Amino acid sequence: MQRVAIIGASGYTGVELARILCNHPEFELTAATSRQYAGKALSEVFPNLLGKTDLICENLTINELCERADLFFAAVPHKTAMDLVPQLLQEGKKVVDLSADYRLRDVAVYEEWYQEHSSPEFIAEAVYGLPELYREQIQKARLTANPGCYPTSIVLGLAPLLRNGLIAPASIIADSKSGTTGAGRAANVGTLFCEVHDGFRAYKVGGIHRHLPEIEQELSALQGEDINISFTPHLLPIARGILSTCYASLTSDLSEESIRKLYRDMYDREPFIRLLPQGSFPATQHVRGSNFCDIGFTIDHRTGRIIIVTAIDNIVKGAAGQAVHNMNLMCNIEETTGLEGAPFFP
Amino acid sequence: MQRVAIIGASGYTGVELARILCNHPEFELTAATSRQYAGKALSEVFPNLLGKTDLICENLTINELCERADLFFAAVPHKTAMDLVPQLLQEGKKVVDLSADYRLRDVAVYEEWYQEHSSPEFIAEAVYGLPELYREQIQKARLTANPGCYPTSIVLGLAPLLRNGLIAPASIIADSKSGTTGAGRAANVGTLFCEVHDGFRAYKVGGIHRHLPEIEQELSALQGEDINISFTPHLLPIARGILSTCYASLTSDLSEESIRKLYRDMYDREPFIRLLPQGSFPATQHVRGSNFCDIGFTIDHRTGRIIIVTAIDNIVKGAAGQAVHNMNLMCNIEETTGLEGAPFFP
Amino acid sequence: MQRVAIIGASGYTGVELARILCNHPEFELTAATSRQYAGKALSEVFPNLLGKTDLICENLTINELCERADLFFAAVPHKTAMDLVPQLLQEGKKVVDLSADYRLRDVAVYEEWYQEHSSPEFIAEAVYGLPELYREQIQKARLTANPGCYPTSIVLGLAPLLRNGLIAPASIIADSKSGTTGAGRAANVGTLFCEVHDGFRAYKVGGIHRHLPEIEQELSALQGEDINISFTPHLLPIARGILSTCYASLTSDLSEESIRKLYRDMYDREPFIRLLPQGSFPATQHVRGSNFCDIGFTIDHRTGRIIIVTAIDNIVKGAAGQAVHNMNLMCNIEETTGLEGAPFFP
Amino acid sequence: MQRVAIIGASGYTGVELARILCNHPEFELTAATSRQYAGKALSEVFPNLLGKTDLICENLTINELCERADLFFAAVPHKTAMDLVPQLLQEGKKVVDLSADYRLRDVAVYEEWYQEHSSPEFIAEAVYGLPELYREQIQKARLTANPGCYPTSIVLGLAPLLRNGLIAPASIIADSKSGTTGAGRAANVGTLFCEVHDGFRAYKVGGIHRHLPEIEQELSALQGEDINISFTPHLLPIARGILSTCYASLTSDLSEESIRKLYRDMYDREPFIRLLPQGSFPATQHVRGSNFCDIGFTIDHRTGRIIIVTAIDNIVKGAAGQAVHNMNLMCNIEETTGLEGAPFFP
Repeated sequence: MQRVAIIGASGYTGVELARILCNHPEFELTAATSRQYAGKALSEVFPNLLGKTDLICENLTINELCERADLFFAAVPHKTAMDLVPQLLQEGKKVVDLSADYRLRDVAVYEEWYQEHSSPEFIAEAVYGLPELYREQIQKARLTANPGCYPTSIVLGLAPLLRNGLIAPASIIADSKSGTTGAGRAANVGTLFCEVHDGFRAYKVGGIHRHLPEIEQELSALQGEDINISFTPHLLPIARGILSTCYASLTSDLSEESIRKLYRDMYDREPFIRLLPQGSFPATQHVRGSNFCDIGFTIDHRTGRIIIVTAIDNIVKGAAGQAVHNMNLMCNIEETTGLEGAPFFP
Repeated sequence: MQRVAIIGASGYTGVELARILCNHPEFELTAATSRQYAGKALSEVFPNLLGKTDLICENLTINELCERADLFFAAVPHKTAMDLVPQLLQEGKKVVDLSADYRLRDVAVYEEWYQEHSSPEFIAEAVYGLPELYREQIQKARLTANPGCYPTSIVLGLAPLLRNGLIAPASIIADSKSGTTGAGRAANVGTLFCEVHDGFRAYKVGGIHRHLPEIEQELSALQGEDINISFTPHLLPIARGILSTCYASLTSDLSEESIRKLYRDMYDREPFIRLLPQGSFPATQHVRGSNFCDIGFTIDHRTGRIIIVTAIDNIVKGAAGQAVHNMNLMCNIEETTGLEGAPFFP
Repeated sequence: MQRVAIIGASGYTGVELARILCNHPEFELTAATSRQYAGKALSEVFPNLLGKTDLICENLTINELCERADLFFAAVPHKTAMDLVPQLLQEGKKVVDLSADYRLRDVAVYEEWYQEHSSPEFIAEAVYGLPELYREQIQKARLTANPGCYPTSIVLGLAPLLRNGLIAPASIIADSKSGTTGAGRAANVGTLFCEVHDGFRAYKVGGIHRHLPEIEQELSALQGEDINISFTPHLLPIARGILSTCYASLTSDLSEESIRKLYRDMYDREPFIRLLPQGSFPATQHVRGSNFCDIGFTIDHRTGRIIIVTAIDNIVKGAAGQAVHNMNLMCNIEETTGLEGAPFFP
Repeated sequence: MQRVAIIGASGYTGVELARILCNHPEFELTAATSRQYAGKALSEVFPNLLGKTDLICENLTINELCERADLFFAAVPHKTAMDLVPQLLQEGKKVVDLSADYRLRDVAVYEEWYQEHSSPEFIAEAVYGLPELYREQIQKARLTANPGCYPTSIVLGLAPLLRNGLIAPASIIADSKSGTTGAGRAANVGTLFCEVHDGFRAYKVGGIHRHLPEIEQELSALQGEDINISFTPHLLPIARGILSTCYASLTSDLSEESIRKLYRDMYDREPFIRLLPQGSFPATQHVRGSNFCDIGFTIDHRTGRIIIVTAIDNIVKGAAGQAVHNMNLMCNIEETTGLEGAPFFP
């Protein structure tokens, strides 16, 4: 059993990490930090965990943290992470950082979209934690930058197309819809039940969401050239789930079956990708609570476009589950460990 | 008071028509037909109407119908409508048909997407009931083809752009999300609470939804040439509401303000269009229960695209409310009559 | 047109008052106050009101308020109300107070459950604003204490039984379930979408909710002796609606029909009470958006208990709608004015 | 690995059994029957299971079933079960029956509430599958009658009180609220999304729900005398979860702490009962997806009543999870096997 700590346990990513880790056979959850709830049992903050963990939320110094665990999930906001993570690395710890602080390889881009970076020297060593693209690097990493939820859903959907040069990069549009856990657990009027329930809205319209540079970085890497896309996030009245509907113009007149083969080539051995049969499309409720990314696509020959639909549980494959997947890889244990549960439906 | 009947009162469009009509000062609801619930009080089928109407659901012949009312809302499925509507017209009645049967001006297109048409001779006279585009024709019509819910949300959002030739027609993508009332009130496993709740999915992906030819017909008319678009419908876990996110490439480098002026020119006197201020975007919960269509847009200069977001209540502006609006126009009464209620939020 | 102001327009009761008043033919909404949103258009705070009102939220002094309107809806929290209302009355204004400050006729009880009362001398003159019980007094009142949402749902359900001495007072249990608008619009973690959605819980269990003394006051008045009841509130994952399930032991072996007659005697001329037919029971979705209180009941002869189920929309009949009803009565205009809309379903 | 079959896999209980069993380390799911979906992959019927099971739904004879498995979960409707189960037993199989057919020990009561019983001779041998009450008998059983969801939530909440004679039996009222999975997966208008969503209702009011005799049977057994209670079920707009609020008059003036001790005595070693700390009460979202039954209670000294609140996931502890728990016991394997997952929140 390796000792694992969650830094920033009081958010939805934190509780989901705890849910997964309290049943993980190789990791032992030894600390959970929360400034706000220090002194309270984690199961008092999140009563679903009652009987599954006795941990008390603590406000620990770096030194105390380093004594308590060897593996760390940093589930703190960006900015906080960049100050914290280097200290853990310097003590020889392994870290999966769930913030945005080490995702963007170009510090100038980071600073344009977020703020000044206090530890840019660690960006180069951080591995972008999308196992389907970077498995080998993750296995050797001591710092993994866990991908954003929207980027996970979009990049996995488009990767086989871009790798094979099948679509016109400038034609890509990603219309994404996210559950409200994505907005975090801070007390805001905008995410009150009565504001979100029985409603639906777009937000950050026009290419201004902070996940955009991350998406474009990964799509560009796949394509081998710089890509700009249209990306519109929306807020769904559900707790968990992201569904992304992506549109792109095909560069040649390929059959659906030949494209399907390319998806299969890339994903058939991937434990958490489910390529849906022809004519089937994902639904968030079919991945709920699991680490799966479901992918379906079709070709609209009238317009020459391919439409790719992906679904993930944004706090599992889009956050906590992918983080555990990464840590499994970093620790050389079977990568699906702790993530075998089937999705919950209904 | 003019005598009005609802043919097919047992669906969600039927009950919404009844809700609106029971408070309408110029129309008197005199008959409501339902084969399934014949003999039952309408307020037993829909207990929200208790105390608002004493009507009993009936299974009436055309002759009986014609004796009972002068104005008709046909809220029956397509195919049923085409057999029924001509008989009403021949008796000198006015009809708003909420089915698809008279929406497509090209009977060949209709027969490709639906089935053989039994009364194609009435198609030419039917007016497409989108008052913002066809107000004058509607005022003179005896048969109005009430638009589909998706078409309403998309056509209104794109009309000012197309009329002014501002976007590349082939670039149009409409990603639409609809509440579950759009699926009707038939007992199907797919629309059970537990299948829809806390989930989200795409359906009819790849340009195969029957509203597509209707959307393209109206967009083509606005543009003055044939247009093919990409259209993907999705199912939202809400009862009422459609939000459409539309993407198109601008043909010239116009400012947001100059485009806003064109929207204002077209819609400023429209009683049911609300153009949102710059930086604001619609939400279905802000039009709930009302006949409003909210429109917001922005330009993404990085990609050269304009993104237009519209929201309507699919069973009001997308069905029953627009039908009443049309009937008001057809009867030369103040067009907003019975539709003045503000949206319900939360 | 009489000039009406909403004091405290930024909560869910405030926006619902505005929604009702902007279509009210006798009242003109002339001011809406909000410290938090002062300077913002009310329709920016609540975009559903766009196009229905041009009011700007203001932070007004009492003098300014008194210049702007003659009728006031005080939708501020308790404590704030008791400081404000007397000043309005002294200026000759009419006030419907939606807080708890003037509901409890015994100031000692008020001070036990809330806090010290700063204007107890106005308690005696305040009329408890349940029109079904106090219509005549309301018509003469200058200050009406608008009832709490839970009390409205419970008192209306039990009144015919208590008035006629049909149930054992000590046997009364009220198990109530409320939509989340009842928790207000303050930013709290406990009412975030993700905390409430797809869940259900009891709260304030054991007779500790502040609506309890108000319920008991009114039940005691009906019975003519002091009554203690069990009352458990619950939080529903819906926006609008309270359903109360009440249990009581019958004191004699009456038939359901004879009891039904007593309900009819009391409520048949009430415009907002709908007594459901035998075997039918209320649902919150059937009163949604309306001022109706639906009531159904049955007798369980095995246990000798009567079970009464009531449903209201908590922010209409439980708050804003009842407030407008009261103001209509206080102004001697037709009492249903502005409240005629049928419930919207689905 | 023991071979397990699900008879009736196409309902919500069926899919939940499959979800649990596909990760169960001791049981191998070898057959899933469904007349309706015969020939279809189970993961096509329930896409959440894609990649977790390759089973095809089949329509199997008893003989075929008996060749395919040794352990059976009968998830078919009552009546079907009573015809099927005896044949499995006669072939030496072990059966957990999730229908009502063997729950009521008095066949006359069964026939009063359901219909004629075709195999009453097996009733006596069937063990009521509530492990907290009948663990030892279940361990020896070949037929377990899996409890109803409402009975599970109510009986577990009241058992410590009744066993210790602390409450007046005639005073018991159980006000229960269930998620919509409890209504099954048949296509009915009443459980369509638009009928249930954003609403709440009571049903089967007045002691007429079929779970009542089952509840009373178990409460009577605990009390040692016949008990009649009031029981009102309600339909919640959630998928999973039952919350029961139970009221009873205490027979003596006990402290909360002394009663808490009795709950602890009974439940402290129970792996699936979580007694909440004083002042805390259950929420369905905190047991979602788990086999836990959460219990909280308080005393209302003003009325002399104890209020007990329990929450379960109705298709786990109220159906599939409890069934697996029973089968674990019947097979002498660690009883929590396959059921260790923490509840998922949010």
